[in-house]
Amino acid sequence: MKCRSCGARAAVEVRRHNSAFCPQCFLSYCRNQVARAIDEHKMLQRGERVLVAVSGGKDSLALWDILLDLGYDADGLYIGLGLAGYSEPSGEHARAFAAGRQAKLLEVDLPADFGYDVRTAAAADRRTPCSACGLSKRHIFDRQAVDKGYDVVATGHNLDDEAAVLLGNLLHWDLAYLARQRPVLPAGDGFPRKVKPLVRLAERETAAYCVLRGIEYQVEECPMSAGNRHLGYKDALDAIEERSPGTKAAFYHGFLERGGALGAGVAEEERKGLHPCPNCGAPTVSELCAFCRLVARAAGRPRRRLPVSSGAGL
Amino acid sequence: MKCRSCGARAAVEVRRHNSAFCPQCFLSYCRNQVARAIDEHKMLQRGERVLVAVSGGKDSLALWDILLDLGYDADGLYIGLGLAGYSEPSGEHARAFAAGRQAKLLEVDLPADFGYDVRTAAAADRRTPCSACGLSKRHIFDRQAVDKGYDVVATGHNLDDEAAVLLGNLLHWDLAYLARQRPVLPAGDGFPRKVKPLVRLAERETAAYCVLRGIEYQVEECPMSAGNRHLGYKDALDAIEERSPGTKAAFYHGFLERGGALGAGVAEEERKGLHPCPNCGAPTVSELCAFCRLVARAAGRPRRRLPVSSGAGL
Repeated sequence: MKCRSCGARAAVEVRRHNSAFCPQCFLSYCRNQVARAIDEHKMLQRGERVLVAVSGGKDSLALWDILLDLGYDADGLYIGLGLAGYSEPSGEHARAFAAGRQAKLLEVDLPADFGYDVRTAAAADRRTPCSACGLSKRHIFDRQAVDKGYDVVATGHNLDDEAAVLLGNLLHWDLAYLARQRPVLPAGDGFPRKVKPLVRLAERETAAYCVLRGIEYQVEECPMSAGNRHLGYKDALDAIEERSPGTKAAFYHGFLERGGALGAGVAEEERKGLHPCPNCGAPTVSELCAFCRLVARAAGRPRRRLPVSSGAGL
Repeated sequence: MKCRSCGARAAVEVRRHNSAFCPQCFLSYCRNQVARAIDEHKMLQRGERVLVAVSGGKDSLALWDILLDLGYDADGLYIGLGLAGYSEPSGEHARAFAAGRQAKLLEVDLPADFGYDVRTAAAADRRTPCSACGLSKRHIFDRQAVDKGYDVVATGHNLDDEAAVLLGNLLHWDLAYLARQRPVLPAGDGFPRKVKPLVRLAERETAAYCVLRGIEYQVEECPMSAGNRHLGYKDALDAIEERSPGTKAAFYHGFLERGGALGAGVAEEERKGLHPCPNCGAPTVSELCAFCRLVARAAGRPRRRLPVSSGAGL
């Protein structure tokens, strides 16, 4: 097959676009898709300070790399989850990337800074590990961004992620989640703006991007994700995509264009009850925010504010 | 396992209800689910004349059987599709059931009455076989019901069917189809009311129902359905249901309860442009209705009105 852009020998196929690209044109394609998503959804303005949620996996490192290449002022934040054998190499990949690109990486470590890890927190708070992890990460990214003056948090959710989350939200008709499932969530009430610039790229495209760019990333799936329902939704959509390439993109982008009626007003209604958590200041509808409750149960003690250690690249 | 209702030895498991039933209680469960769907969605009134769309498969024969048992005035209509090796035994099952229950079965035969079969019609009208078949069946059921004074057409769409159709409609965000995907479509503008009383029963439940009732049905999948996208959606949902029993029911019933905002107004808007087809009188938005166009292309001649031959049980 030939590269759609330059006619050279193609190295990466993109079936949903019925296209293939040579390495250089594929990297340009990825950057263009991110630039287009940013532009289309008004995610970022020039000069804004961006905090990239960095896990050490392919998506977050590709995102950070592309944002830097596109000229955005993007720092990273890596959160160590305390998962033996998984967290250490993930952190190393994040630090190596930051050092190589002379980029600034902030770090928070759950065991060192909060006295718990995802595995014990899940058990203590009667959540699934993915729920405890997501809660911890959302809270810490939000707080760090607000406290350190970042305008926006950028996360590496790709098209496959968003399509699978959308399927899960629709299978359960969770209108509040559907209302929030947007590529941009505006700032307000103590939350920073949050954006997902990879929504136009599939999972295998961010993997190919990292390989072609020589970015080392954590290839292993998180050891806590086995049996995760989200992965089941991904498998189901993969099977459909295999038969009808382009279905995932049509599904997700169709939702953005035509599913807007779902949950309209639900998000606004939810935000009405928000007040600052008396312990940490994060917006919450409960007496104590869910994160502070999790910390109290998992580590046996409440914490006031989040400490930050600076990692490589500073 | 023991029967949930009577404590006898269970024969049929219903995982999504975390239940099992003995044969007699399972049959009662099926009847109750149908009665509940009819009641919940105000599908039928006592004394109304019901035309059951009968294919000779498990769903339509179970539906007809249950409607008769529930005391409804239900006749059947079988449409011969002209698929060699498949249509003959399907028709035989429909006739045998009607004869056994002394019920009235109307019959229409596409090759004999309209000069085409589904296979050639699909090619001539540049449709998939499933599209040509669905169009033919919808048109003929509608016309027969209106012409013969039936109040309502009842179809055997079960929970698995509806969940798969819903998934397909959501994957493509087809708002017009979503607006119409209801267990009851009211009569109006030349259309009879249409109802789906099996929406609370899964596919394997209607199969078990027929087996336990000794109803012989067409077990083979339609030979034209290979590669049908709908079957791909069924497979995807089956895989999810296997991991999380009850997901399909939550998906479909959640849509009915909370997805109402989707496509609101679209169905009304569509009906505004309707006028009677100058050839057959069916409501259409086109110059000639899609069915008359299909017949003209497939059989090379337009037909005026639908002839009817009476089958077994009359």
